[in-house]
Amino acid sequence: LTIALLSDFGTRDVFVGVMKGVIAQIAPRARLIDLTHDIPPGDVRTAAFRLWQAGPFMPRGTIFLAVVDPGVGSERAAVAVSTDRFTCVGPDNGLFTYLLAQAGGARAVEIRSDAAQAERGSSTFHGRDIFAPAAARLASGAGLAELGPAVRELKRLAYPRLELLGQVTDPSSVRGEILLSDHFGNLITSIGVLRYTRDALRLEPWIPECPGTRLPLAGLAVRLGSMDIPIVRTYSDVPRGSPLAYVGSTGLLEVGVNGGRAIDLFQTVTGAEVLLRLAKQRG
Amino acid sequence: LTIALLSDFGTRDVFVGVMKGVIAQIAPRARLIDLTHDIPPGDVRTAAFRLWQAGPFMPRGTIFLAVVDPGVGSERAAVAVSTDRFTCVGPDNGLFTYLLAQAGGARAVEIRSDAAQAERGSSTFHGRDIFAPAAARLASGAGLAELGPAVRELKRLAYPRLELLGQVTDPSSVRGEILLSDHFGNLITSIGVLRYTRDALRLEPWIPECPGTRLPLAGLAVRLGSMDIPIVRTYSDVPRGSPLAYVGSTGLLEVGVNGGRAIDLFQTVTGAEVLLRLAKQRG
Amino acid sequence: LTIALLSDFGTRDVFVGVMKGVIAQIAPRARLIDLTHDIPPGDVRTAAFRLWQAGPFMPRGTIFLAVVDPGVGSERAAVAVSTDRFTCVGPDNGLFTYLLAQAGGARAVEIRSDAAQAERGSSTFHGRDIFAPAAARLASGAGLAELGPAVRELKRLAYPRLELLGQVTDPSSVRGEILLSDHFGNLITSIGVLRYTRDALRLEPWIPECPGTRLPLAGLAVRLGSMDIPIVRTYSDVPRGSPLAYVGSTGLLEVGVNGGRAIDLFQTVTGAEVLLRLAKQRG
Repeated sequence: LTIALLSDFGTRDVFVGVMKGVIAQIAPRARLIDLTHDIPPGDVRTAAFRLWQAGPFMPRGTIFLAVVDPGVGSERAAVAVSTDRFTCVGPDNGLFTYLLAQAGGARAVEIRSDAAQAERGSSTFHGRDIFAPAAARLASGAGLAELGPAVRELKRLAYPRLELLGQVTDPSSVRGEILLSDHFGNLITSIGVLRYTRDALRLEPWIPECPGTRLPLAGLAVRLGSMDIPIVRTYSDVPRGSPLAYVGSTGLLEVGVNGGRAIDLFQTVTGAEVLLRLAKQRG
Repeated sequence: LTIALLSDFGTRDVFVGVMKGVIAQIAPRARLIDLTHDIPPGDVRTAAFRLWQAGPFMPRGTIFLAVVDPGVGSERAAVAVSTDRFTCVGPDNGLFTYLLAQAGGARAVEIRSDAAQAERGSSTFHGRDIFAPAAARLASGAGLAELGPAVRELKRLAYPRLELLGQVTDPSSVRGEILLSDHFGNLITSIGVLRYTRDALRLEPWIPECPGTRLPLAGLAVRLGSMDIPIVRTYSDVPRGSPLAYVGSTGLLEVGVNGGRAIDLFQTVTGAEVLLRLAKQRG
Repeated sequence: LTIALLSDFGTRDVFVGVMKGVIAQIAPRARLIDLTHDIPPGDVRTAAFRLWQAGPFMPRGTIFLAVVDPGVGSERAAVAVSTDRFTCVGPDNGLFTYLLAQAGGARAVEIRSDAAQAERGSSTFHGRDIFAPAAARLASGAGLAELGPAVRELKRLAYPRLELLGQVTDPSSVRGEILLSDHFGNLITSIGVLRYTRDALRLEPWIPECPGTRLPLAGLAVRLGSMDIPIVRTYSDVPRGSPLAYVGSTGLLEVGVNGGRAIDLFQTVTGAEVLLRLAKQRG
């Protein structure tokens, strides 16, 4: 069984190694895959999005052990959530909101430490004392119910901004936002796109609020700041140094620069408005 | 068997991957856990502390392969040290001082390369040529004595500063120092604390020089620079932006800032004096 | 079987974790070793050199899965290359040039995605959609020919600059260049050296263009910028703060500073000329 780890612990300290040591003692045969430990400290939303990105590519049955936990030590619960495709273990702060949208049949429990464990445990490193042991117990065969009592409602993050402008049957544009950037300086938008073909672009409902619509391609452009950016297939379809919009590897529209960094060119930040302008608007 | 790796090699080069390749050839079934490879270059003391932090959470029998080695190529010995709980492999420069205090029955040998190996080996990458092969041989069943002759005395680091001020039977305060910071900017002190309860704080002898005493809680505060910092259970017990002192996940007093970074607020450095002031002092 | 991964994906995103998830589904028993994911974005030459460094230390049969791919989405081919010691999977952009010089009997195929896979795949993340699945299929027993049709010619990088100056039978110096720096700020040159002994230094033909010659040691020095640097065995052979040249762990002459960083002292960049001056020149 695979345990996929994600945190904001960084790699300078031994936090991650210690969690792996704890897991190795309880579930010595589990396969561990690091998703990332470089989530900006306390940034639950970026973490939730990263989990969403990785979800479809992990083996069936993967246990996602995610710890981005600005509320550690406060009253937020520790939870484990099981679905028909994977299981999540971490703090109940919305971390799994987008990932859980990928699967059905979610059942959640609150992880209860026994008294002895709670006595020994620290108030600041639940990754080591609560989440890693719970994930490891599940990986070695424990049932969800053994971890604690059922939970009715989980905390949820808001979905990213995404709306059709104009008439519903004949929209003029789609308004989204910049979700985050990647290592190459590309800007990832909230606009989900199923496929970009010769003459159309099909919006993909990657989140419940996202419209699923087929749009004629002619004249389509992405507007970010004061710039209109052409939608193309890949970097080399525009000259070096020029911006482009394209369907990224997770099915979201992204803005990049061929041979450069969009985040530097646009000086933009997470949350900035981005418009997908439809053909008519120009006519 | 688990080999836990720690070094100052960083992750930009292929040093760490090459050590793992060497291990895989000798001990293909060993489980590898990276503790960290981001120790500041040559900082043996930070490395020693990180090993101490990880020690209690690694599986019994773990082989700690640690390479922070400012004296590579000079006359310092290569050693392997076996205890009743784990084994250490690395340069004899004090790296294992604090970790070894966690276990009993230490026996040490000097790792001798055979002549052919020494001829092939480099003078600057003992991690690849000496330490990784030795750790892998131990992981695949070799006995300590097969690596080389017994060593009587190991190099040792000094223990961090930690002393009771005032009368022994009635101390007025505890003087320690800032050991290092973590990824979140928290400052970790040398003051060991077993447990912080409603009405008392029990000092924990984490190192031999550390006093083991039960102190009344009333009026306790940590003094760092010119600031008195309240001792609380966790971040959310103080307002956002305020400093707090708390028992960290390894049982040492730490100084943090709720929603912020103590290292930025205090502009302090490793080695700075920190005082745990006891109640009477205020009376 | 071992899959050794190298990329310029960084560790902030989940790109690497996603590749590992894909591999785990196809080849659940493969051992994964990360060489590095911190290659400067798009820097194929540095990546090629890192692969060359790691090559000799990986288990026989290792599959090198390397993705540094500034031309992703353009017409460059995806290739798999099998030799008598290892296999390479990645873009056909010269990435494996130096690594392949370490082995014989190379056979290459172009990786062809089937139509369904190509339809689903993204235009920007071939690591996930093409290279990781191909490496995993090879690791789980597929033959090279199952991936696609044979390729006659692979793209190749130029070899680093390296030439003997003066008369061939009696050279006055060797001219090379700075290839790259490492985590410790050492500068790695293109001058290959088999072994440095008491009275001679034997140049090693690490690349075909490199001369293989035995040079008398007396008066030898490395010239970088305007400074003559003594050739010694290891850091501690020069005073703290002084530069030194030495045979690095991969058999190339390196320039370092005892207790310091050569890259800061020399303010030099990749490609800078370095001269190995022979004794006579001084007479």
